[in-house]
Amino acid sequence: MFLTFLDFLGTFVFALSGATRAVERRLDMFGVVFLAFVAATSGGIIRDLLIGAVPPAAIATWHYSAIAALAGVTCYYGYGLIERLSAPVAVFDAVGLGLFAVVGARKALDAGLQPLMAAGLGMMTAIGGGIARDVLTARTPMVLRKDIYAMAALAGAALVSFGPDFGLDYALTAPVGAVATTALRLIALRRNWSLPSARPR
Amino acid sequence: MFLTFLDFLGTFVFALSGATRAVERRLDMFGVVFLAFVAATSGGIIRDLLIGAVPPAAIATWHYSAIAALAGVTCYYGYGLIERLSAPVAVFDAVGLGLFAVVGARKALDAGLQPLMAAGLGMMTAIGGGIARDVLTARTPMVLRKDIYAMAALAGAALVSFGPDFGLDYALTAPVGAVATTALRLIALRRNWSLPSARPR
Amino acid sequence: MFLTFLDFLGTFVFALSGATRAVERRLDMFGVVFLAFVAATSGGIIRDLLIGAVPPAAIATWHYSAIAALAGVTCYYGYGLIERLSAPVAVFDAVGLGLFAVVGARKALDAGLQPLMAAGLGMMTAIGGGIARDVLTARTPMVLRKDIYAMAALAGAALVSFGPDFGLDYALTAPVGAVATTALRLIALRRNWSLPSARPR
Repeated sequence: MFLTFLDFLGTFVFALSGATRAVERRLDMFGVVFLAFVAATSGGIIRDLLIGAVPPAAIATWHYSAIAALAGVTCYYGYGLIERLSAPVAVFDAVGLGLFAVVGARKALDAGLQPLMAAGLGMMTAIGGGIARDVLTARTPMVLRKDIYAMAALAGAALVSFGPDFGLDYALTAPVGAVATTALRLIALRRNWSLPSARPR
Repeated sequence: MFLTFLDFLGTFVFALSGATRAVERRLDMFGVVFLAFVAATSGGIIRDLLIGAVPPAAIATWHYSAIAALAGVTCYYGYGLIERLSAPVAVFDAVGLGLFAVVGARKALDAGLQPLMAAGLGMMTAIGGGIARDVLTARTPMVLRKDIYAMAALAGAALVSFGPDFGLDYALTAPVGAVATTALRLIALRRNWSLPSARPR
Repeated sequence: MFLTFLDFLGTFVFALSGATRAVERRLDMFGVVFLAFVAATSGGIIRDLLIGAVPPAAIATWHYSAIAALAGVTCYYGYGLIERLSAPVAVFDAVGLGLFAVVGARKALDAGLQPLMAAGLGMMTAIGGGIARDVLTARTPMVLRKDIYAMAALAGAALVSFGPDFGLDYALTAPVGAVATTALRLIALRRNWSLPSARPR
């Protein structure tokens, strides 16, 4: 129950990130809702395709498209409001990041993947939507350029993935992993931590 | 028989849209044929992957690649001709839109998807090729920016998807849905209808 | 044993092409490794998804991500070295092209695809990583624009795909096809062969 609520909240916040970008690019109402859906669900869809779980959860029920539509409409009419709320949105985004990473890693483990690859797929679940959003708006994905974002997701996903090897149960690693990812992301944001950029020469 | 003809015609016209873009970008002959194939088949391939129908119809037979090659070669050598024929090409594109939306929705329904999501997948079948074409040429997809295009496809797909709930058979909803999508698209084109664009402030 | 070595070598060289691009775009360390992985494995992942072989080989074991990480780190710290070694890297890239084309065609044939489509999937295996790399860095894929690259891959893949129809065994067509692709690619590179570009008017 609480998990479903968090899942929907994470979906909504990720959808907002897509809708916000769409409004900035002056897409039309359809484009805003479409990009909201893509940003919210692509990570999970990629994961589900890779582990053979079809149809992917995101299209098996109407919930995720309804949440994306809600986020899209909210952003289309309330862009100014969303912009002023950028601080809380960043917090919820970090919450979604932790949640998606942990849930994605678990699903990949259940599908029989090796722990290292399950951790990778958990991370992909969390960052895939943002990558798809950036590709659709013809931009090199932000997650590849700066910030501690993917690495935070990887940390939580790895805890869930390697937990069983150390006798740690999902009931323990999931909340700890999600909180660790979220906390790491928020601290990085707060302190402006980022990985160094490559220098061609 | 007639349906197969329409399917091939729709594929050819969608392939033309990819090949035309490729010529504009001065791609080479391979690029022209490749982009023709992508524009013609990506929507159906995405749908088939999402519902677990592998290998996707577009690669299960050689027909679609042959049609794409034909469209590519036509456009490579006859770009001027295609350009002068832009009015009939737009009409056939609208026909393809209606057909792909309806067929896509039906396949999604048959795969057990909920009506709302089947309608979405039908729409995706119709617009996915154009999105892939635009992404491959590093452009924000046109369908997200303006025009009544996706919404027209959604209308026809929704008719097919929700028809059974109202006791309406596919034999009825398919032709009506396809014609409705095509007509809506053509009227929108003629009257310059479009959805309003988002305004960041 | 030797084949596995060649497969890993091809993966490493393709990964270098992704990592090099990432460094040029000044991505961070995570972005460099991620793009290395994408460039090395996307072709095979697309092929595996299309033939229903899930999870794809690239994520079923940790080997490919380890190779990508190695290539990424190498390029991040040794970009100057990689740049000076561009001639041998081009040779290894041609080797990878031949190998991936041949192996991809075989897997597609084994999955029951028609020879023509198996040849296409073999080619896609070889060029898909480069396409994904270019899309993620918001560029029209180089393979669509110039050079004899895809056509060289197609030649080797076609030999493997149509071989059985002429009574030719994989044990024969695989090495001949791989060498033919590699040789064709290297000659084209050396002599600056390319397909003519489309001219819009």
